[in-house]
Amino acid sequence: MLTAIFKDWARRAAQPVALTLGSLGLTPNMLTVIGFALSVGVAVILWLGHLSIGGFLVLVVSAFDMLDGALARATRQTTRFGAFLDSTLDRYSEAALLTGLLMFLVVQGDQLGSLLAIAALVGSFMVSYTRARAEGLGLSCEVGWLARPERIIILGLGLIFGLAVPALAVVAVLANFTAGQRVAHVWRATREQ
Amino acid sequence: MLTAIFKDWARRAAQPVALTLGSLGLTPNMLTVIGFALSVGVAVILWLGHLSIGGFLVLVVSAFDMLDGALARATRQTTRFGAFLDSTLDRYSEAALLTGLLMFLVVQGDQLGSLLAIAALVGSFMVSYTRARAEGLGLSCEVGWLARPERIIILGLGLIFGLAVPALAVVAVLANFTAGQRVAHVWRATREQ
Repeated sequence: MLTAIFKDWARRAAQPVALTLGSLGLTPNMLTVIGFALSVGVAVILWLGHLSIGGFLVLVVSAFDMLDGALARATRQTTRFGAFLDSTLDRYSEAALLTGLLMFLVVQGDQLGSLLAIAALVGSFMVSYTRARAEGLGLSCEVGWLARPERIIILGLGLIFGLAVPALAVVAVLANFTAGQRVAHVWRATREQ
Repeated sequence: MLTAIFKDWARRAAQPVALTLGSLGLTPNMLTVIGFALSVGVAVILWLGHLSIGGFLVLVVSAFDMLDGALARATRQTTRFGAFLDSTLDRYSEAALLTGLLMFLVVQGDQLGSLLAIAALVGSFMVSYTRARAEGLGLSCEVGWLARPERIIILGLGLIFGLAVPALAVVAVLANFTAGQRVAHVWRATREQ
């Protein structure tokens, strides 16, 4: 949904920052690894219960995560390994953030919140997995409502405004629904052939 | 590791059972969906704390999950959508089992166990994700120590013998290590080209 409009705007905004970091000698793959390390840091902040600050940092760090791709495109360093590493660490970053929040909820003894956090984690993974698996079978699959930018914005804003569990509920439902949309898409695409 | 030997033996054992179910009018995709529904049932049993029975059922239901592929191969009904649906619901099945066990640990207030369950869930996903993503980039990636059969056997036996948390620790470490092996594999494969 958001993805197309958001990506276009964000890519233009990210380019000068990315080029500055590149001029300091950082490569796109280094930015990918730094982005992941920052997400682990934010996950610890969430685990410790600083949810509002954590939510703000979720948005900042996730914006940082776009710089690797921006630098790679601007300097024509796009590689297959770079794309693979970026995707893999994007999954780990998102898993880290949701694990941090989940552990906070576990510590609180919030069983419903914990279940929603797991469901959000599983749904987020499945949105990415269904696309990757479809592409492995030779089909494009960039469809559905809730790609990563939307998930991160819902989670970040939810944390900032004290609505962590409702935000998890929204991501849990819509991410798994999006995975279902992708299954339906692959079903239609393969039936036509 | 186990996968090659295990798959060969299991496929031969599964074929007559699969053909019997097929002769009753069940299609491979129906078996895929039934296998997933059974996993959700086992997840609920784990959540309720019946870990030994649950562990035994994890092994039984996961064996059932091979019947879809066996029937598809034996009756030449292998399709791209069938492969996609099988992979997708295999991920959901494994997620359901680990979520059931995680929720039992959350109810118990076992924070370390909960963290290990999440790490096992994330690692298991990443083993499958890295392979699918690599295949989407045109690389084969069936490497590494801990594919699904090994994960299920460790988890099932751990549950049966009252070693649920140690089993989760083994899966958490080895699954994420396997994801790392796959990243290293893709790095080598793309560097050579």
